[in-house]
Amino acid sequence: MGEPASLDAFFNPRSVAVIGATENPGFGYVPTRNILSHPSVKSYLVNVKGGKVMGVKALRSVKDIPEPVDLAVVIVPSRAVVDVLRDCAEKGIRHVIVESAGFSETGEDGARMERELVELAKANGVRVMGPNCVGVVNTSNMFTTADVDVASLIRGGIAFVGQSGIFGTSIVDWACSRGIGLSKVVTLGNKCDVDEVDVVEYLADDEETKVICLYIEGVKPGRGRKLIETFKRASARKPVLVLKSGRTETGARAVMSHTGSIAGSDEVFSAALKQAGAIRVENIDELLYTAMAFTSQPLPSEGGVAVLTNSGSLAAMLCDELDSLGIKLASFTRETRSKLEEAAPSWASCRNPVDVGPAVIESAAPIVELLGRDPNVGSMIFIFAIPGIVANPRYFGADLTPFFKHLGDIASRSRKPTVVLGFGDEKVVQMVEEGFKQFNIPVLRSLTLTARVLAALYQYKSVVNRLK
Amino acid sequence: MGEPASLDAFFNPRSVAVIGATENPGFGYVPTRNILSHPSVKSYLVNVKGGKVMGVKALRSVKDIPEPVDLAVVIVPSRAVVDVLRDCAEKGIRHVIVESAGFSETGEDGARMERELVELAKANGVRVMGPNCVGVVNTSNMFTTADVDVASLIRGGIAFVGQSGIFGTSIVDWACSRGIGLSKVVTLGNKCDVDEVDVVEYLADDEETKVICLYIEGVKPGRGRKLIETFKRASARKPVLVLKSGRTETGARAVMSHTGSIAGSDEVFSAALKQAGAIRVENIDELLYTAMAFTSQPLPSEGGVAVLTNSGSLAAMLCDELDSLGIKLASFTRETRSKLEEAAPSWASCRNPVDVGPAVIESAAPIVELLGRDPNVGSMIFIFAIPGIVANPRYFGADLTPFFKHLGDIASRSRKPTVVLGFGDEKVVQMVEEGFKQFNIPVLRSLTLTARVLAALYQYKSVVNRLK
Repeated sequence: MGEPASLDAFFNPRSVAVIGATENPGFGYVPTRNILSHPSVKSYLVNVKGGKVMGVKALRSVKDIPEPVDLAVVIVPSRAVVDVLRDCAEKGIRHVIVESAGFSETGEDGARMERELVELAKANGVRVMGPNCVGVVNTSNMFTTADVDVASLIRGGIAFVGQSGIFGTSIVDWACSRGIGLSKVVTLGNKCDVDEVDVVEYLADDEETKVICLYIEGVKPGRGRKLIETFKRASARKPVLVLKSGRTETGARAVMSHTGSIAGSDEVFSAALKQAGAIRVENIDELLYTAMAFTSQPLPSEGGVAVLTNSGSLAAMLCDELDSLGIKLASFTRETRSKLEEAAPSWASCRNPVDVGPAVIESAAPIVELLGRDPNVGSMIFIFAIPGIVANPRYFGADLTPFFKHLGDIASRSRKPTVVLGFGDEKVVQMVEEGFKQFNIPVLRSLTLTARVLAALYQYKSVVNRLK
Repeated sequence: MGEPASLDAFFNPRSVAVIGATENPGFGYVPTRNILSHPSVKSYLVNVKGGKVMGVKALRSVKDIPEPVDLAVVIVPSRAVVDVLRDCAEKGIRHVIVESAGFSETGEDGARMERELVELAKANGVRVMGPNCVGVVNTSNMFTTADVDVASLIRGGIAFVGQSGIFGTSIVDWACSRGIGLSKVVTLGNKCDVDEVDVVEYLADDEETKVICLYIEGVKPGRGRKLIETFKRASARKPVLVLKSGRTETGARAVMSHTGSIAGSDEVFSAALKQAGAIRVENIDELLYTAMAFTSQPLPSEGGVAVLTNSGSLAAMLCDELDSLGIKLASFTRETRSKLEEAAPSWASCRNPVDVGPAVIESAAPIVELLGRDPNVGSMIFIFAIPGIVANPRYFGADLTPFFKHLGDIASRSRKPTVVLGFGDEKVVQMVEEGFKQFNIPVLRSLTLTARVLAALYQYKSVVNRLK
């Protein structure tokens, strides 16, 4: 069959057939509606029963479509999928997303049907995504085959690749309901054909994608080496973040009953990732917040972290976290040290962390200027634990947003990656967020996460130095 | 001097002298205002300059107060504190909170003044809290010497003991702005006299306090053994959660410059805590959310965790976390297994985790009933990653709150500790929160935290079995 078809038609089809199109508000309803209402992608609805679906005539077979079709989205019951795929192949469709479940994840009968799918696809040069997935989201054209709200999608630089539909959908919901932009989301389901190797290769070339996030339950036998090579090539161009489950016995059992995946040795996987320059993260929060930082922050320049804080306790805990991750505090230059002593109140600690305590509002701006200019400072963390009474109308009622905006501006102009921890009164933390928002500086609520996100920037910097 | 004075007057004074009372909106303003406006605690303002403060006549010396005084709150400059303490002793005041900073944390001069304070206090049977702190919050009488908004305080079962004022204030702000209740908060500052030993002893007897949380930078030389004994006695009665910084070299340096504390060997500290039955937590989120769970959930009964999920991926990750923490999944009884197969859709996985996928709304309630009744189930975790379109008015627009409320009711009646993870669309997660709120079942947004909070309940259960 020659060169396998590029994945591009999964994300940018000119025409799509929805096979099993339905207006019943259950499985298949949302993809049908989302695809049908896309303003520029030509859609055809197919349903063996014919009639009308959402007011549009449904054809009885994909073969009745009078024009060429780039992509088929299959949402028929599992027992009908093989025949549908055969029709698609005959129609000359080379990209098929099978959303239907009921294949290898359910036992031997399902596994047999899945093998038939694969053989048919291979024989006809058809690329199949799924089964047991919700396909794709592409925010550059707002095309999606998934159960998401198209109007809420936000364009951005984060790509996410997962297996099951519900988790993929939840990631989209998580990001978009928090104002965080995505480039592409792919749910691979049982990965009968298209797998992480194909998708990471595609995303490495995708200009919209600035960071690739993967959730993996297991690697298909025989694909491990290829996956690691792909990670390595992709990592030289953009960060690849990997969250993998099945690392314990209980987790491995859960993974097997979920997508039939074999988790494999966790040590081997970790070592291979490291060698490939991919960054392994420990949990979902770390995956998503680190991805956010990669899309908005530059990589650290030479030098350690400068910490500005108004709480010595929080700074001490942060130092523990950074030390555990092998991240060093910056040693300020003589010049910075002496200027810090002028800028900070006499009782403030001007070593690193710089602890300005209650004088934070008066002294933070000149201090951030100094930290940003110090050649020994490679990155910055700001900790704000500002008492609620400062903003509380019953006490001082100050609007702190302009203050944080000013700091965001200075930090942003320094071109040093900056991560902010907001702790305490939720209203004050929202002012911190609001202030740093326009500069795309991440504001986190967890100290552990703050340290881990910054550490990932350093980790990727050393990957870039090694792979380039 | 006989028996040292009980700490009770720090929390429940009938009369208080504010020494250094001020109406200037800086250091000392908020404590002055909060104490002055307390409806039932009699307050006296003292200021060497005399005159009026906030419309109230200020006396020039504490010795001019015509009646007995239970507690003095000192907010004068550090160089004046020793004389003020002498006046307090002469006046017969046996409890003094020194909020002023500028003592051992600043160097040798400060340390000398701090030693003078201690000698004077010891010689006169005066208990001193601080210096370099903001004293106490007591929600049972709404008395506070700290920089917090009295009107926002929420009464509850969590006690927090920390060192510096800003961190203590932030903890109060954090909890109260999230609707989480506190019993007492104590900031010990430099711990020149009153330290964790005294406070934990007091809180162990305090009926309002259901769980004791501590943030510790270092233990004073010679107090380690006593502290561990105190933890042991307290742990037999209520959970003691400990967050300690200075566990790494960088952290230890930060701690020393913050409160002059010596962090000490982290391994020794951890081993001692374990032996005492105190629970060491890794970060602030874990401290606070675990404390919440202890105030609202019963301890696990015999048996492992039952997991109900609508996302197999999230369940697999949770299994990894639980396994790493040594927490076992429950093995359902035969009866439960067969009834689960009736209650769940045919394709759902009825092993543990029970994965009902998209059928969560229809099948969760009978399943939670079954899990709650299974004698092999000691606790429950529910994972909800419900697609935003379900609640989105542009799609299905369902109000899920009653559904979650129903589940909360069933879980609550089972008398098994339950922790809920909400993931995905923030609006849906807020419905999850709203639904479980009236049953005081914690709803978390972090999977790692969900596992760790549940693990702490099991850990304390084994402490209780051992110490009782």
